[in-house]
This record gives sequence, structure tokens and C-alpha cells, in this order.
Amino acid sequence: MNDCLFCKIVAGQIPAAKVYEDDLVLAFNDIHPAAPTHMLIIPKEHFPSLQDIPQGKLPVIASLFAAAQKLAETTGIAKTGYRTLINTGPDSGQVVFHVHLHLLGGRKLGKLG
Amino acid sequence: MNDCLFCKIVAGQIPAAKVYEDDLVLAFNDIHPAAPTHMLIIPKEHFPSLQDIPQGKLPVIASLFAAAQKLAETTGIAKTGYRTLINTGPDSGQVVFHVHLHLLGGRKLGKLG
Repeated sequence: MNDCLFCKIVAGQIPAAKVYEDDLVLAFNDIHPAAPTHMLIIPKEHFPSLQDIPQGKLPVIASLFAAAQKLAETTGIAKTGYRTLINTGPDSGQVVFHVHLHLLGGRKLGKLG
Repeated sequence: MNDCLFCKIVAGQIPAAKVYEDDLVLAFNDIHPAAPTHMLIIPKEHFPSLQDIPQGKLPVIASLFAAAQKLAETTGIAKTGYRTLINTGPDSGQVVFHVHLHLLGGRKLGKLG
């Protein structure tokens, strides 16, 4: 996936402020944060969007949320509250076409969209 | 979980506009829709919030997203785009304390929160 920004971050070809990593998952701070805490949690495997993840690979989503729970704990937003969100396709505002889970917190969050 | 609204829907004690059901998951239309398509996808098992799901039970999250993919396909928002979102705790606006995945689409969606 030569042209994928997030694949390049996974490969170490582009730097990112990494906050979590395991065999399946990488997380880093969003470079345009929409809240005091705004991290992106991605599968290391490339899927352009949520809709493109085949049934058999959906367990990776559980791994993204396991990382979200840990990061919520370490950043303190597990107590104050947080939002986890995936945008898919044109109407959603998805910009990078590599699945990413937004983890947002640190202030009162607004509307769902 | 006698006092949980969503457990009562699962048990059939309170009606809901069901759109999907399998062994682990139930989905129904949100009664206060924030978008033309706004469904709630819940695990049948009661967890007050995402943060309360133990590691060993996190695969249920993959089941929620499997249902989201199917519902996105059947409603047509798989093509136009959609947002999947879980609110957890005070800052997020979580109102019902039984984990639920919001599936939103059918119009251009706004800010992340």
C-alpha cells in the first residue's frame, strides 16, 4: 500500500507521536486534534474503510477497542468520559482511507455529527 | 438488570423498531434520530459502558460492527457514507448505560464532537 499515509506510519517511513503499539494495532496522536485528547487507533493491516473489512478479519476491531480502553485508562478519560468513532465513506468526513478509530475526550463533547 | 431500558428491549418487555437481530446482537432505530439513518446496535449482554467490557468479552464489539456493516449495506449508506460511534461516560453524552453503537448516515455528517 505504497500511497497510504497510515501504512507509511506503520512502516516507520513517516514519524508520528505514537502512544500505543502491539502486534496488530498502532495508536498515535491526531495531528489536528478536535479535543484535548484525540488519538487515532489503527490496524496495522490495511483496510481502506470499515466496510472493506471482511467478516473473518473483524476481530481486529476488538483489538482497536482493547487499545482504546487502555489509552482511556492511562490518559484519565476513562473517568471523565470519551467518544470512540469511525468514519466511513463520503458523508462521514473520512479523509485517510485506512481504517482508524478516533478516541476523543478531555472536554464535554457535542453532537454525534 | 431490572432497571436497564435496553435490557428490557432485549427481553421484549419494551417495544422497539428492530432492524437486526442475531444471537449476540440487537439493533433498532433510535427514537430521537440525529440523522436520516440512526440505528443503535447493542450487545444482548449487559455492560454499562465500553470501559466495563472485560478483555475476554471484547469480541462482542466485532459482532456489533458486523451488524453495522450489514445494516449499512441494506440501508444504502455503505455507499454514501456513515459514522459508527460509542459514547462512554460523562463527557461523551452517554445517556443509557448499556453499551450501544450508534450507526449514523443519510446526510453529510458534521464535527466529531
